[in-house]
Amino acid sequence: MVRVIADTTTPASPVGGEPLPRKDAERIAGVLKALADPNRLRLISLIQSTEGGEACVCELTEPLGLSQPTISHHLRILTEAGLVERDKRGVWAYFRIVPETLNAVADLLTPPKRRGRRRS
Amino acid sequence: MVRVIADTTTPASPVGGEPLPRKDAERIAGVLKALADPNRLRLISLIQSTEGGEACVCELTEPLGLSQPTISHHLRILTEAGLVERDKRGVWAYFRIVPETLNAVADLLTPPKRRGRRRS
Repeated sequence: MVRVIADTTTPASPVGGEPLPRKDAERIAGVLKALADPNRLRLISLIQSTEGGEACVCELTEPLGLSQPTISHHLRILTEAGLVERDKRGVWAYFRIVPETLNAVADLLTPPKRRGRRRS
Repeated sequence: MVRVIADTTTPASPVGGEPLPRKDAERIAGVLKALADPNRLRLISLIQSTEGGEACVCELTEPLGLSQPTISHHLRILTEAGLVERDKRGVWAYFRIVPETLNAVADLLTPPKRRGRRRS
């Protein structure tokens, strides 16, 4: 593409593509809103760092310095957004990350060129 | 790791790691908040789809169905979050994505195993 820097009558790089469909944008914005909180990001990182990839609320309170009800509140938001899933076994409920949701958001954010390299 | 499903006295998967440091979590939450809006996600996708990887406000109004001041408002939020940068040439100001910011967020969201595969 030839770019005419000094041209002041037409923009240099015409927009050719289509924006993300509104419905997809709304869905992804909802997931990002659930993620956009420091405590929830720390919660996710902590669950991800667990050996078995899952943790119960009682294990998360101390490293995060938050009360059990606060952790439960954040886990509920993450679960509703499809970022975390809950598995009850015995008296313990375990929470694990849903990698598909995180990967879908990560793929959307990554520019096409890099995405192409990643998928090759 | 041996998991005792029926054990009701101790959780099955002890949390071993450390959560994301609070400062990092706050910084990333700020970027995610800027992203967590359907119009801003559509704006980013539209700029990314442009042949030269950049667009001026006047080109974005029609495909997004938004007024110029609304587009400018969203671009300002994205610029402040380090997701977009502005380059003024002649009478036109061009906006392009800052891939480093998007990639940093995408890397954070991607579970370690997948990240390892991506980087190889």
